[in-house]
Amino acid sequence: MPGRLPNAGMRIALLGGTGAIGEGLALRWAYETNHDIVIGSRDHDRAQGKAREYETELDSRGVDTTIEYGVNRAVVTDADVVVVAVPAYHVRDTVETVADELERGTVVVTPAVGLSRDETGCHYNPPSVGSCTELVADTAPQRVDVVGAYHNLAAGRLADLDADLAVDTVLVADDDDAKETVRLLTEGIAGIRPLDGGPLGNAAAVESVTALLVTLGQYNDEMGEVCVQFH
Amino acid sequence: MPGRLPNAGMRIALLGGTGAIGEGLALRWAYETNHDIVIGSRDHDRAQGKAREYETELDSRGVDTTIEYGVNRAVVTDADVVVVAVPAYHVRDTVETVADELERGTVVVTPAVGLSRDETGCHYNPPSVGSCTELVADTAPQRVDVVGAYHNLAAGRLADLDADLAVDTVLVADDDDAKETVRLLTEGIAGIRPLDGGPLGNAAAVESVTALLVTLGQYNDEMGEVCVQFH
Repeated sequence: MPGRLPNAGMRIALLGGTGAIGEGLALRWAYETNHDIVIGSRDHDRAQGKAREYETELDSRGVDTTIEYGVNRAVVTDADVVVVAVPAYHVRDTVETVADELERGTVVVTPAVGLSRDETGCHYNPPSVGSCTELVADTAPQRVDVVGAYHNLAAGRLADLDADLAVDTVLVADDDDAKETVRLLTEGIAGIRPLDGGPLGNAAAVESVTALLVTLGQYNDEMGEVCVQFH
Repeated sequence: MPGRLPNAGMRIALLGGTGAIGEGLALRWAYETNHDIVIGSRDHDRAQGKAREYETELDSRGVDTTIEYGVNRAVVTDADVVVVAVPAYHVRDTVETVADELERGTVVVTPAVGLSRDETGCHYNPPSVGSCTELVADTAPQRVDVVGAYHNLAAGRLADLDADLAVDTVLVADDDDAKETVRLLTEGIAGIRPLDGGPLGNAAAVESVTALLVTLGQYNDEMGEVCVQFH
């Protein structure tokens, strides 16, 4: 990773790239940068279907690009960055499934957050290791670097290329080079400002904001899908 | 409290009104509203000194007003709203000290947050009941209503009457009338938007954001004192 400029075009594999947050990141990167996007799913046909759907959306906006696809284990090969965008309860299985294929120096990014809901609101429900980001770090092989990012983005707005984002995302990582790679990737998307949240151990503080955002959307009707900005 | 309009001029006692967040709230309410402000402290002379200091600041801006003061136990008498703005580790003692003097229907508000710091950042350190707000609710007599608010405000900006705030504050309470009173009080200060965060049980999710804000200030040099906005 060091020495490779993100704006030279990286290969980004999105595991769970068919889900809401994966869709938004795929569309934004494909629309606004020259990175190669690869959609991963547990189901090959589903990955293919969503990749075609994203291509159609991009084509309608004058961007002629190919979105690659495949099962999760296949798409991580040769990826510079792997985004684990699956639901929290699939994080461990997904990372275990692809672990053998992850190459040294690959940056593994995760926006996953464990949430539970009841009548009082949405609540942060972290795994026993403290956070989803640390669960990814614990499950992934030592030879990769893990970055927590994109936790608090509103998936609907992200996937709507007409929506102005004006949001912040907090990055947590123990490896500075990996964090810098994700910072530059993030800056490629207009309207998302990357902020440094320190080491992986701070991930829970970032992930938990997601629950508050959902709660605020529930109690403040005028807000809709809630995003956060720090200033 | 029901039936009394906040804009008719309420009596707001600020316990810990000599501290950073208390100073900001006192100055803002005294400057922008017609509420009566009473500064409480464990130390009578310190309360007097700060009240005089606030009056001088307000006078320099053309506001001729009297800021009352006294020891915490004295200032809660006849207060419509009592703000417990002491450090987290003094919350229980402070509420116990004034408990007998709190009248039925008094709204008790607290911005207190337990924080700890180490080299990795600032961390949320809640009491065993789950949050400082719930600690206040557990310690205060049943006849008062407790609202969590003003947790994530940057004290320095709040106390600088020249600073544009443009911040949000999340209110949590089990009593809707008490929450409404604080919502209206908050709307009296330009630049602070009150949002509904649901019941007291959601307080930890709100309080913990304060730790993240401090961490972001630590890792992002350009940010200074960090505030939050939701949109």
